[in-house]
Amino acid sequence: MMQNGSTKDDNWQIKSSQAALATSATARWMASAKKSKSTDESVPSKSTITLSIGELLPPTEARAAIVDAIQESSAHGYAISYGNSITRQAVAEFLSDSNLKFTIDDIIMTSGCNQAIETCFTCLADPGDNILIPRSSFSLFDSLCAAGHIEPRFYNLRPDKGWEIDFEDLKKKHRRANTSCSHQQSIKSMWHYEIYAGMTFEGVKFHATATLSERVPVLTCGGISKLFCCPGWRCGWIAIHDPMNYLFDSVRPCLFDLSVRLLGPNSIIQAALPRILNETPKIYFKDYMAYVQKNAELMFDILSQAQPTIEPHKSQGALYMLIRINPDQFDGTIENEIDFAKKLMDEQAVSCVPCTSFGISNYCRLVTVAPFENVRDACERIVEFCHKYQKKSNGHTHNNNNTE
Amino acid sequence: MMQNGSTKDDNWQIKSSQAALATSATARWMASAKKSKSTDESVPSKSTITLSIGELLPPTEARAAIVDAIQESSAHGYAISYGNSITRQAVAEFLSDSNLKFTIDDIIMTSGCNQAIETCFTCLADPGDNILIPRSSFSLFDSLCAAGHIEPRFYNLRPDKGWEIDFEDLKKKHRRANTSCSHQQSIKSMWHYEIYAGMTFEGVKFHATATLSERVPVLTCGGISKLFCCPGWRCGWIAIHDPMNYLFDSVRPCLFDLSVRLLGPNSIIQAALPRILNETPKIYFKDYMAYVQKNAELMFDILSQAQPTIEPHKSQGALYMLIRINPDQFDGTIENEIDFAKKLMDEQAVSCVPCTSFGISNYCRLVTVAPFENVRDACERIVEFCHKYQKKSNGHTHNNNNTE
Repeated sequence: MMQNGSTKDDNWQIKSSQAALATSATARWMASAKKSKSTDESVPSKSTITLSIGELLPPTEARAAIVDAIQESSAHGYAISYGNSITRQAVAEFLSDSNLKFTIDDIIMTSGCNQAIETCFTCLADPGDNILIPRSSFSLFDSLCAAGHIEPRFYNLRPDKGWEIDFEDLKKKHRRANTSCSHQQSIKSMWHYEIYAGMTFEGVKFHATATLSERVPVLTCGGISKLFCCPGWRCGWIAIHDPMNYLFDSVRPCLFDLSVRLLGPNSIIQAALPRILNETPKIYFKDYMAYVQKNAELMFDILSQAQPTIEPHKSQGALYMLIRINPDQFDGTIENEIDFAKKLMDEQAVSCVPCTSFGISNYCRLVTVAPFENVRDACERIVEFCHKYQKKSNGHTHNNNNTE
Repeated sequence: MMQNGSTKDDNWQIKSSQAALATSATARWMASAKKSKSTDESVPSKSTITLSIGELLPPTEARAAIVDAIQESSAHGYAISYGNSITRQAVAEFLSDSNLKFTIDDIIMTSGCNQAIETCFTCLADPGDNILIPRSSFSLFDSLCAAGHIEPRFYNLRPDKGWEIDFEDLKKKHRRANTSCSHQQSIKSMWHYEIYAGMTFEGVKFHATATLSERVPVLTCGGISKLFCCPGWRCGWIAIHDPMNYLFDSVRPCLFDLSVRLLGPNSIIQAALPRILNETPKIYFKDYMAYVQKNAELMFDILSQAQPTIEPHKSQGALYMLIRINPDQFDGTIENEIDFAKKLMDEQAVSCVPCTSFGISNYCRLVTVAPFENVRDACERIVEFCHKYQKKSNGHTHNNNNTE
C-alpha cells in the first residue's frame, strides 16, 4: 500500500536474482498444481479431504523428552553449529548396525532434511557441474539445481520392477556425464535422501545405501520427520560414510564448516533427541507402519476399480503411493497428470500431487498416512471421477453405480 | 578409516565446490581466532572463562508456552514454509507501533536470523553484484558474499561518534557502486540486521531502520534469540517494509517462494510464539537489560585501567562491547587484534572475538551478558594481561599490583 504522497519512480522496481527466480518458478509450479484451476467458477460442493502426515502425533515418549528438555538450562543457548555432541552421538548409534558403523565425527545435524540436502549440493557442485538424479525424486533437487546453475541429469527407474534403477539408462547418463562435463567429481560421490529409512511394510527389508558401498563415499541425508511423525520439528542430519577416506581432505571438513551458515536444528529438540531415538518403543513404529500399510492396501483395492484410466502401484513402504494416469483411457478431458490433479481438486476436492515435480510424467502421488476414513473417501471420489471421464467405447459407459 | 582391503585410488580424492571452500575459509578463520595458538605448549593454568549468552534462561512464560504447545496436535506437522498464520500475525503485531505498521503478509518466518539474512542475499544479489556493508558487521555476510560471488563494499562507521554511519564514506562507496557495477539494484533496497532490536540501555531509544524510510524498501531480519535469551531455538523472520511497492512484482513473492528451500523454524516454537511475544512481562526485559547494563558498566570501569594499551567503548545496548587494541602501546608482542585474542586465550583463558571477522581491524568484541563474576574475572585478567605486555617507557613498568 502507498503510505505517503511521494511519487513512485518506476525505475526503482527491483528485480529478484536469477537464483531466486529459478526457485520461485519451481515453488509456483508446485503450488499451482495443487490448487484448483478455477476456484471462482466451480467451487466443489464436497468438503476438501486433506491427506497429510500432520494428522498423526509423534510418540508420547518423544513429546515427554521435549517437555523435560525445556527445563534444562543447556537446551536454550547456541548449539554447536554442526550439532551438540550428545545429539550427534545418539544419531551415530541410531544409524549404526552390524553392517554399518557411524561415529560422532560422521554426523552433522541440520535444520530438517532440506538443509542436509542443500548442504550436500552446495558442498559438492560448482555452477556448470551436473548431478545424476533418479526420476521420480524430490522437487527440492530441481530448485537447488536451478538456483546453483547445476545441470540435473535424470536417469530412469523401472515402474514395472518396483521402481528399481534402470541400470542401462544410468550407465548411459553416467558415461555422457564423464565425457561432456568439465567437472567430473559430482559423479564420484553419492548423496542419498533417506528420510523414509526403515519405513517398510511387513516382509520388506530396507537397505541403507551406505551398506552397499565399500569404496564410493555416501552422504546420507536423513532425519526424524517421517519416522517419528514430526516433520514440523525440522531435525535432520548428514551421515558421512567414506570407507576409503576420499572425502577426508576437502569435502568432510567443508560439510562441517558449511553448518555455520544456518546453525543447525532447534536446541530443545537436540537436547531431547537421545531420548527420542532411544526410548520410543518398537511397538510405536510397528503400529505406525501397520496403520500405513492397511491404508495403502485399502487405497490400492479401491483405486483398482478405476482401471484402466488409472493404475495404482502397490507401495512397499514410506508414506505415499503412486498412481499411473493413462490419458488415452480418458474421454479427452484429461491430457496429463497435471490436468488430472487440477480437475480432481476442482470437482472432488481431493488433493494429489502430480509427479511432474518429481521428474516423471503420467504419475500422481497420494499420501497414505491420513486417517482411514479420509483415505477411503478420497479414493472413492477418485474412482467416481475416473468413471465419469472414462473413454466410452462399445456403447459401454461408466458411472458411480457401475464399477467393474 | 579404511574398512576393507580395496586399494585407494588417489584420482578419487574429491574436492569441495568453490562456494563451500569460501564459506569454509571464513569459518576456519573464526574458529582459529578463538582458539589458543599453541594449545599443546602453553596450556593456561587458569580455568577458561566462558562469556556466552547461554548462561541466562528464556522467560518462564516462554518455556510454559512451549510445554503447552507440545500438547497441541497442530504443533508437529509441516508448518507453512513461510510460517503459520498465527505465528506471522503475532510477529506483525509485535513489530508494529504508532510509526510502523506490518501486516501478516509482510512477515516470513525463518530458521533463525541466519536464514533470514541468507534469503535476502539470495533474493537480491546475482553473482557479480555488490552489497554495501557497514564495518563492523557480522561474519556471515562475508561467508555469503564469498559463496555467492557477491562483492562486499564496506563503508565505515565512526567509533568516535558512537558508531554512527560515516556518511562521507558511504556516499563515496555508493557512487562507485552506481558507476562500476552492471547491476545497480542492490543499492536500491536495504536489508537490515536487527536481531538486537529494542535492546538498549536506560535512556537510549532504539529506532527501527524501517521507521526512517518513506520510500526505500527495507527488509528487516530479526528474531527472538537475543531478546528472549533463546538463540538455540532458531526462530527468526524477515519483515518487509515497502511503502512505495517497489518490491511488489518480483522481490516480495520471491522472498516467500524461497522459503520452500528450508521450510522455516520449528513448528512447536511457531505454535508457542504468540504467547511468547504477548505474555512475557515487561519486567523480564527491564531486568534483563539492567543486568547487561550493570555488566557493561563494570567491564568499562575495569578495562579502563588497562588504558592506553586498550580502550573500552561504552555500550549503549545489545549484548557485547567493543574494545580498541592499540598495538603501539604494547611492547611489540601484540601486533594486532588477532594476536591479542590468541595470546589472551593462551595465557589468561579468556575468549574475546577479534573484529577482523566483522570487517574492522584493531578491535575486539566482548560479550556482556555472561554471569557477573565471569565478566568481572575476565576483565581483571585482561587488565593483568595488558599491563604485562604494556610498552615500558620512562622506566615505568606495569604489573598486577600497579594499576593506574
